Amino acid sequence: MGENLTIWTFDWVPEGPRGFVRDMRLRWAAEEAGLDYDVGTVPFADRQPSHFERQPFGQVPFLTDGDITLFESGACLLHLAAKSETLMPRTARGEAETLQWVLAALNSIEMVAVPWWFLGLSGKPDENLSGWLDSRLAHMERIFSDREWLVENRFTAADLIMADVLRVPKVRAHGDRPATEAYIQRLVARPAFEKAYADQLAHFAAADERRAGR
Amino acid sequence: MGENLTIWTFDWVPEGPRGFVRDMRLRWAAEEAGLDYDVGTVPFADRQPSHFERQPFGQVPFLTDGDITLFESGACLLHLAAKSETLMPRTARGEAETLQWVLAALNSIEMVAVPWWFLGLSGKPDENLSGWLDSRLAHMERIFSDREWLVENRFTAADLIMADVLRVPKVRAHGDRPATEAYIQRLVARPAFEKAYADQLAHFAAADERRAGR
Repeated sequence: MGENLTIWTFDWVPEGPRGFVRDMRLRWAAEEAGLDYDVGTVPFADRQPSHFERQPFGQVPFLTDGDITLFESGACLLHLAAKSETLMPRTARGEAETLQWVLAALNSIEMVAVPWWFLGLSGKPDENLSGWLDSRLAHMERIFSDREWLVENRFTAADLIMADVLRVPKVRAHGDRPATEAYIQRLVARPAFEKAYADQLAHFAAADERRAGR
Repeated sequence: MGENLTIWTFDWVPEGPRGFVRDMRLRWAAEEAGLDYDVGTVPFADRQPSHFERQPFGQVPFLTDGDITLFESGACLLHLAAKSETLMPRTARGEAETLQWVLAALNSIEMVAVPWWFLGLSGKPDENLSGWLDSRLAHMERIFSDREWLVENRFTAADLIMADVLRVPKVRAHGDRPATEAYIQRLVARPAFEKAYADQLAHFAAADERRAGR
């Protein structure tokens, strides 16, 4: 297990997204689970056909696991979760609840948060989208007020992805939600997160040094 | 298997969304897999605390499977897929590829298509979001030009969810993509889709009759 596991990311990205490029989700998961992995890169500036063959939208991350390649950070996370009880309980109920919250993070929260953030970037924030995001985040605040973890009263991949979606600075700063903020702080204080985060920053810093050395 | 499987949806919805309420995804999947299921309802007009307990955003569908309850249509679909080789191949590669495309439908296509549609509804379509959708749909058109199915050259849950995301009328009418259109037509012509679609329409039509009879 972990043999030939490679997390693929860009060779370089601008400063802005560093610490948030989605290979974070897979680095963090692999660190939590104690899986050995390598990090591979594809060019950010000049995306090749071989990249689109492995990730049809030209994004990262994608994952190779022996002779299997898969993309979509959520799918790769669930693929890693199947390898480790740390990431997903081995009970039918625990698996179902992990699945439900991983999908909720991606398809109920991120589905609203990312377009809201994207429209804000272009200088045209939309109030309907903002109201929709408020509503979703208010529902999550109610949940975090009642419990520490999403599944079975302990850390799972569901918390990993939910925290990764919610820790985006603009989303985190949008409204006052103390239980959510405490949840994010608890998650990003985990040693596996800190290791993954430091590794991603170091990866892109090394790319800067290579560029400067040219 | 299938014993005590219940797909939960609203007791009634307006005409507009009929045929597209997301219990469709689960009805269709259960029909493809030959799973026995019941359909349960929660009030559309007056959402109860017991509904929010089972679906924290007050949406549908959610699924009960014996004593397990889960929400998020994508999570429920993957839960059903684990029960049936019709929905997901039993090879490591087939499972990984099904997972990747189910997540791509939800988190790369629907994540752009739904907010784009939502902003259009409010009369304020956004050109950046529209360009993003164009790009995602163009990548899918390229894929459908090369292959008939997403995984292992046969129908899987990945096609079910991708077709369900792409068949939304506004999305389907947005641009000229003949390979994508042929793909959608192929999927919605499946007897399991036709059965699920007719059942959903009949479910809401019966609710109209009950209302008229009051």
